[in-house]
Amino acid sequence: MKIIDCHAHMAVPHQLGVYKASLLSHRGAHGRKAPPVSDDAIRQAFTRVEMAPVGHLQCLADAGVDMQVISPRPFQLMHSEEPKKLVHWYVEYVNDIIAQECALYPDRFVGVAGLPQTGDSPITEALGELERCVTKHGFRGCLINPDPFENGGRKAPPMGDRYWYPLYEKLCELDVVGHIHSTSSREPDREPYSLHFINEETTAVYGLCRSTVLDDFPALKILVSHGGGAIPFQIGRFDATSVPRNGMAVSGTRFRDRFRKLYFDTVLYSREAIELLVKVAGPSQCLYGAEMPGVGSSIDPDTGRTFDSIIPFIRELDFIRDAEREAILSGNAARLFKIAV
Amino acid sequence: MKIIDCHAHMAVPHQLGVYKASLLSHRGAHGRKAPPVSDDAIRQAFTRVEMAPVGHLQCLADAGVDMQVISPRPFQLMHSEEPKKLVHWYVEYVNDIIAQECALYPDRFVGVAGLPQTGDSPITEALGELERCVTKHGFRGCLINPDPFENGGRKAPPMGDRYWYPLYEKLCELDVVGHIHSTSSREPDREPYSLHFINEETTAVYGLCRSTVLDDFPALKILVSHGGGAIPFQIGRFDATSVPRNGMAVSGTRFRDRFRKLYFDTVLYSREAIELLVKVAGPSQCLYGAEMPGVGSSIDPDTGRTFDSIIPFIRELDFIRDAEREAILSGNAARLFKIAV
Amino acid sequence: MKIIDCHAHMAVPHQLGVYKASLLSHRGAHGRKAPPVSDDAIRQAFTRVEMAPVGHLQCLADAGVDMQVISPRPFQLMHSEEPKKLVHWYVEYVNDIIAQECALYPDRFVGVAGLPQTGDSPITEALGELERCVTKHGFRGCLINPDPFENGGRKAPPMGDRYWYPLYEKLCELDVVGHIHSTSSREPDREPYSLHFINEETTAVYGLCRSTVLDDFPALKILVSHGGGAIPFQIGRFDATSVPRNGMAVSGTRFRDRFRKLYFDTVLYSREAIELLVKVAGPSQCLYGAEMPGVGSSIDPDTGRTFDSIIPFIRELDFIRDAEREAILSGNAARLFKIAV
Amino acid sequence: MKIIDCHAHMAVPHQLGVYKASLLSHRGAHGRKAPPVSDDAIRQAFTRVEMAPVGHLQCLADAGVDMQVISPRPFQLMHSEEPKKLVHWYVEYVNDIIAQECALYPDRFVGVAGLPQTGDSPITEALGELERCVTKHGFRGCLINPDPFENGGRKAPPMGDRYWYPLYEKLCELDVVGHIHSTSSREPDREPYSLHFINEETTAVYGLCRSTVLDDFPALKILVSHGGGAIPFQIGRFDATSVPRNGMAVSGTRFRDRFRKLYFDTVLYSREAIELLVKVAGPSQCLYGAEMPGVGSSIDPDTGRTFDSIIPFIRELDFIRDAEREAILSGNAARLFKIAV
Amino acid sequence: MKIIDCHAHMAVPHQLGVYKASLLSHRGAHGRKAPPVSDDAIRQAFTRVEMAPVGHLQCLADAGVDMQVISPRPFQLMHSEEPKKLVHWYVEYVNDIIAQECALYPDRFVGVAGLPQTGDSPITEALGELERCVTKHGFRGCLINPDPFENGGRKAPPMGDRYWYPLYEKLCELDVVGHIHSTSSREPDREPYSLHFINEETTAVYGLCRSTVLDDFPALKILVSHGGGAIPFQIGRFDATSVPRNGMAVSGTRFRDRFRKLYFDTVLYSREAIELLVKVAGPSQCLYGAEMPGVGSSIDPDTGRTFDSIIPFIRELDFIRDAEREAILSGNAARLFKIAV
Amino acid sequence: MKIIDCHAHMAVPHQLGVYKASLLSHRGAHGRKAPPVSDDAIRQAFTRVEMAPVGHLQCLADAGVDMQVISPRPFQLMHSEEPKKLVHWYVEYVNDIIAQECALYPDRFVGVAGLPQTGDSPITEALGELERCVTKHGFRGCLINPDPFENGGRKAPPMGDRYWYPLYEKLCELDVVGHIHSTSSREPDREPYSLHFINEETTAVYGLCRSTVLDDFPALKILVSHGGGAIPFQIGRFDATSVPRNGMAVSGTRFRDRFRKLYFDTVLYSREAIELLVKVAGPSQCLYGAEMPGVGSSIDPDTGRTFDSIIPFIRELDFIRDAEREAILSGNAARLFKIAV
Repeated sequence: MKIIDCHAHMAVPHQLGVYKASLLSHRGAHGRKAPPVSDDAIRQAFTRVEMAPVGHLQCLADAGVDMQVISPRPFQLMHSEEPKKLVHWYVEYVNDIIAQECALYPDRFVGVAGLPQTGDSPITEALGELERCVTKHGFRGCLINPDPFENGGRKAPPMGDRYWYPLYEKLCELDVVGHIHSTSSREPDREPYSLHFINEETTAVYGLCRSTVLDDFPALKILVSHGGGAIPFQIGRFDATSVPRNGMAVSGTRFRDRFRKLYFDTVLYSREAIELLVKVAGPSQCLYGAEMPGVGSSIDPDTGRTFDSIIPFIRELDFIRDAEREAILSGNAARLFKIAV
Repeated sequence: MKIIDCHAHMAVPHQLGVYKASLLSHRGAHGRKAPPVSDDAIRQAFTRVEMAPVGHLQCLADAGVDMQVISPRPFQLMHSEEPKKLVHWYVEYVNDIIAQECALYPDRFVGVAGLPQTGDSPITEALGELERCVTKHGFRGCLINPDPFENGGRKAPPMGDRYWYPLYEKLCELDVVGHIHSTSSREPDREPYSLHFINEETTAVYGLCRSTVLDDFPALKILVSHGGGAIPFQIGRFDATSVPRNGMAVSGTRFRDRFRKLYFDTVLYSREAIELLVKVAGPSQCLYGAEMPGVGSSIDPDTGRTFDSIIPFIRELDFIRDAEREAILSGNAARLFKIAV
Repeated sequence: MKIIDCHAHMAVPHQLGVYKASLLSHRGAHGRKAPPVSDDAIRQAFTRVEMAPVGHLQCLADAGVDMQVISPRPFQLMHSEEPKKLVHWYVEYVNDIIAQECALYPDRFVGVAGLPQTGDSPITEALGELERCVTKHGFRGCLINPDPFENGGRKAPPMGDRYWYPLYEKLCELDVVGHIHSTSSREPDREPYSLHFINEETTAVYGLCRSTVLDDFPALKILVSHGGGAIPFQIGRFDATSVPRNGMAVSGTRFRDRFRKLYFDTVLYSREAIELLVKVAGPSQCLYGAEMPGVGSSIDPDTGRTFDSIIPFIRELDFIRDAEREAILSGNAARLFKIAV
Repeated sequence: MKIIDCHAHMAVPHQLGVYKASLLSHRGAHGRKAPPVSDDAIRQAFTRVEMAPVGHLQCLADAGVDMQVISPRPFQLMHSEEPKKLVHWYVEYVNDIIAQECALYPDRFVGVAGLPQTGDSPITEALGELERCVTKHGFRGCLINPDPFENGGRKAPPMGDRYWYPLYEKLCELDVVGHIHSTSSREPDREPYSLHFINEETTAVYGLCRSTVLDDFPALKILVSHGGGAIPFQIGRFDATSVPRNGMAVSGTRFRDRFRKLYFDTVLYSREAIELLVKVAGPSQCLYGAEMPGVGSSIDPDTGRTFDSIIPFIRELDFIRDAEREAILSGNAARLFKIAV
Repeated sequence: MKIIDCHAHMAVPHQLGVYKASLLSHRGAHGRKAPPVSDDAIRQAFTRVEMAPVGHLQCLADAGVDMQVISPRPFQLMHSEEPKKLVHWYVEYVNDIIAQECALYPDRFVGVAGLPQTGDSPITEALGELERCVTKHGFRGCLINPDPFENGGRKAPPMGDRYWYPLYEKLCELDVVGHIHSTSSREPDREPYSLHFINEETTAVYGLCRSTVLDDFPALKILVSHGGGAIPFQIGRFDATSVPRNGMAVSGTRFRDRFRKLYFDTVLYSREAIELLVKVAGPSQCLYGAEMPGVGSSIDPDTGRTFDSIIPFIRELDFIRDAEREAILSGNAARLFKIAV
Repeated sequence: MKIIDCHAHMAVPHQLGVYKASLLSHRGAHGRKAPPVSDDAIRQAFTRVEMAPVGHLQCLADAGVDMQVISPRPFQLMHSEEPKKLVHWYVEYVNDIIAQECALYPDRFVGVAGLPQTGDSPITEALGELERCVTKHGFRGCLINPDPFENGGRKAPPMGDRYWYPLYEKLCELDVVGHIHSTSSREPDREPYSLHFINEETTAVYGLCRSTVLDDFPALKILVSHGGGAIPFQIGRFDATSVPRNGMAVSGTRFRDRFRKLYFDTVLYSREAIELLVKVAGPSQCLYGAEMPGVGSSIDPDTGRTFDSIIPFIRELDFIRDAEREAILSGNAARLFKIAV
């Protein structure tokens, strides 16, 4: 069995920051001019010690992770910047580097694309890049940002709105995963990006489960980040208002039933949370994810281990069968992302 | 032992809706003119079958609840309406009816006030009404709305900001509870009020635990609604970024430690969630709350019981001691709200 | 001869306020859910003493009024609220209660509909409800709100604009009356709704008389509230600028001539005003209206009678013939609203 | 007896338009540079045939008017233009020309000043110019614009607001008249300036009579243009809501009583309107005004006389005494404007 | 050889200012009503001493100028005023007066039209007036305003954008000159209109030379005011970034090469500037222009001559041939504007 | 004689871009965390071939430049980003690296600081950093950005406004140079940053010369970038409107006289422009500047030399004396920036 971390992000060679800073300095006046990244620069990025006690590759080795699904660092995607061509240029550059990383470590990484989403544009403007990444680079999915305005006052339509249907159609057509993950936040004091992720996931799951999206697209594969925001913990609340008050049986529109058609990663960093997630969503819908190195890579003073050392929590779940445990750690991700294991 | 439901809302005699509709129709042109409410009207309101299979008082009897802490129905508080005097008039009217309800059923109910918060005003403008309700009506706390703009585009400062300090000082001075609960939402399609509650609680707890509020006001009693939004489930995420990356011991500023200075109700409606909450926050910080009748008062088709029938979940927690169980069901609320039991 | 009050408003059972308050609290999140109104509740509403010294039905008896044309209480219609579906739900609910009232007292009342007008929408979106009320409920006309933004900064096109033509066409097709009456005002301190009515009527009559609407729709029946705002009093001003400066005879476009194609109610509450109106507009264009009970139902300390006791003023007009007097009190309304007398 | 037209506007030498156009072209970049106006240019302006069949002076002769109170042409005052210094420069220029006109025809004209009101500024910024005009030029009052934003979306506070108190104090201190008259309208299609005048007068009178201004400033002399907008015609409506519903006698706050502390001109152009005004306001509060030449100077095809030929209407009022008639035509204006007759 | 001043503006009879002031006072409520201008008024305007020590015609005589190309005074064109019909009415009025001036002095003046450009409208709305002026009045070109918002916050597309192509096509079709000249500025303190001219010319030339406009319309005749703003002085800067960094020869897209397809007037008022312009742009692209009387008509205290006495500077250029000098003073303008010399 | 390039920018180690990208990604949520830059990284930055055919140090050697005054790359300074603390953090980081560069090459470079200017803040908020850089790092001046909104719609006050006086006072107090140079542009299609520089310099010089700044601060040393934008070329235009029309001598307020109190660099890249600048401003006010490597570092295909090879143009000026030439190349900069030569 290969253990697959379904939610991880690329190693970032310094050219990425330099390129982003440059675009935001000249706002397009210098043209696209993307700096090349050498394979050596990528290798350095994977070994640099930065967010974790060890480098990216060593994180995997230490945790016993065999493969990772890597996508852009979401908070760097700048979906709300103007003019919009900057977003397209930057996202394409990022996706190409991910492809380069996957090519360099074909046994370690498979890619998930960023989309050039921008606030006022129809979602169709982002689909060309999705198609390019899947057909040219062999990517297995894309990030979906429910809030391309980046907490900037205005909001995109809810995830159940027809606005998003062309994306859902394309995901089904290409048979790849849509991974819900918002980007940065323009209200950093009240709701910094890391908190905004959680609130947007809560809102996105709500929007999907209160609409007919999952009925309309039975083949749609949606993976929700960070264990689904607040929803698994708050499921009773939303379940209660989705049934008739009189307790008559319902079918199809019950919140809990739709909720269990979604997939969730385990990027939660506490034993209690992972237990709850698996109980509420069911083992078939949970995918091991640790987002290493990342927000959980600091060392817990109580345990001496990094917070993202969560495989033991999964191994120690005593209410699931071994096949279910293996599905969480490997099989579910392999199936969704079409990884041979 | 008296079982106390720490999070419940008033029975609403029809005059309340009539008055609100009237204010929003004439926008103040008819003056304050609040219609009187008879004791009979209140008794009817407590027996009317509306949100639950039985009336309000019968809900308590059926669940075995002895006392409830009642506050205004938050989603009706219209903090974002203009002109601002409407908010003041309406909230004062509502608080007076709560006082009338408590006086009519002194063994059943204690009151918690709504505050006349409005978006652009300093919080001090709401403190007169708080003081009036505590000193005149004997209320034991107030609702705190972190978003008086009601999801209307602009946002109030985060809960750790000095903006809120006069309120915290007044709560300490009066020795009453601040109960975090947002009101309505002006973005009903993407984020209706019931979902907005959860996101605002998540944001509020984050704001409190990333600031020095709880250090600056050691006597402050903050009760967070609905089990704290997403935070108990996502605690690892925020804990991880509050410690030094190198695992050195810290004291005082760790997210988890501050989190455990807050109080949480159990308005969660699933066994798994209540288990997680008690484990993560600890029994001393949890207060039984069911918000009956309310969002959880529909009947679960699977069990035939209403979703808000959660006392069994607490009784069946096998990892706490009986004294802790009693604290959750009764003692913690009695202490915080100064209820003789 | 049956005396007909052409401008009156429904009796308001308390469910109306409760429903409005509820919609504005949840903003649509609870769905449409309109509470039923019993016939008893309606009967109570017609006998409740509220705005006048006696109840609604008694007002009619005391004044000697045989029939009333009743429409929604305009200031409650909330045309400017968001999301727009709230406006549709509420107006339809109100119209249905008016139909129920007319059915309960078929010899007393005929109905006029509210329209679900909203600021940014084409007027066609309101026409389905008009057609429903006329064909299903037998209503005889509708209110027209020249300012669905409710004094909220932006303004609808003037009444002579092509924007309104689909409504005029539908009124002609259904052969029913359009009754000009604005709703609430979001600037209550400077211009509360009751004053805003007057200014909007002034503006509406101006817009109609400076355009070709009344030429383009010869069969159009427009009734202007409150005696036409300021226009009958200010007629010289607008007449003067509608003729060539040199005094050459004109035909068709003179303000006064177009003005006399409109109908006006006598909701004015002073003898002098009613005299002026009948002189300026002519008896054939004036319809008795008292809006009882309503703004004029307080008792004049000088006379001991309510201000809306205006039938004597009409009876005492010494410059018209008896047939003209009868037309004002009965015949004009009977013809316009197709009431058998 | 000298007949005094209390509401007339200056003769406009072409330099005024040239100067205004120039200011609005360079927006202040050329500095103040006001072109001088020769006495000859003024004489030409008073004899030029433009708005009326004859020139300004001939209008007076034909109508039998001895004196006029002249003020700026209000719709030209551009209170809403930016930068604000343009407003100050232009108004001062206009006032100086009025002074020059009065000096040239001292037996014919007395002056009333325009004020440099601008939307966002405290009213105190306009008081220096008022004082200058009264003390230096011997002016007898000023125009008051209730809407310096010129129908531009935002609104000044209502006339009863403390915002206006420094102006009222200054008017009392200088013992001069405040003449309510709005300026232009930035919404010309729906509500052109001439209609906006009427609506703003209606609103201004309402604001004054619903506040304590007239109690707080017993010596305040307010003259309302165009017979008070809609108010004399609609007086019953506002009177009715100013008394207790039960008909108990009231004193001081009754709308009608406050209304009768204001002064009104007769710029109405119909016999019926003038009759109503004198009946409702009382002869002591009415001042003959015809605004000649002006909006009423076109010839009525029915009579062959100009619409503003209204002295006969006053002479033919059969319900007042001769002394009252003389007061309307002369004495009231002489007293208010301190004109020796 | 006839000396032709290619950049001059009309003499302004006072009716123009009066009409503009009137339009901006009533905002269209009085209708179009344009005052006629007599030939005498025009003659007076050409002899009035205003901006220069002598009148307009005398300026030409003193300077030895034979003919002038005259256009509207740009800063008076009020392109940003609302409603937009005012702009159309005023520009058409202005163009007709220019035509009248040219007809009165056929040997002295040829006309260039103003365009009724308005900020939010497609440029096609201005083309009817261009065609009317060329075909009916025999005008030889038009002003092009790159900023119809008049420095009001928003901006029109850059001059290389497709937005402008219908204008370029029409100019080619009619074979007339487009003369770049912005109008007024709504930011008079920081950037008054006279400075805004320069910045907008700089931006316009940049926009044209960085796009393919001059390639797409080889026959397009664009004349840039005031010597091209900053561009001839800053040419090295923009030239440097238009070539490959490595110095490889380029063709067609080099900034300098496109720059030399434009025409420039000599309205610069210093010997050094005129020298630089002729050196950088080449004699074939330079047209004598002095804009007399105008901004340069004050007397230089150092020389005792007006600043706009620049013909000597051209005559004294020692680096060009006589034929080139004659082209600058006469031939280039004659060819571009189709003036027989 | 040491040749001093008075206008050059720092070498940019890649950490700068990485840091900027990081700040704009997390918007402050990660705190300040500035990455250290090693001396080696700086040395690499000075030898990296990027904008020019050779590295930074080699550029100097090839051109024969002995010293450079270096400041931040202006277009990277992101003055318009939110929250404002990002601007402060980034600018301080940049200034520290400049200090490190100067320390590493003390014979080559002296430093000029960036200021943490932000749009809505008083300029005093930027003065602490100026003082820090001068007193701690020995910097000799600072950049002044006339447009901290970065072409974002709103504008800072003109340079003559009192807003800027605290900065001018501080510059005098510290006896250092203020170097006018705007930063980026948020309107990249119409006016990219490189063009915006020119327009802002034009506007800044205009603002200074039309105000009393240079009279009020006789010791103020202002250096204007890129030869002063358009002003030296357009000097006649602004000079003409600064004198009385009648040619009377003036003193002090003449545009040309104030203009000659400013200093200008020669960053112009054409022989003609440098000639004009020296003639118009005078040799005492001109400082050699080439901004190497930078916008002029591409190779001119015609000459085979880079555009910024402008020392020959200065050497070949035939209308100045040798001492003046030396002042331009060295002495003026030495005096202003207090460099020992």
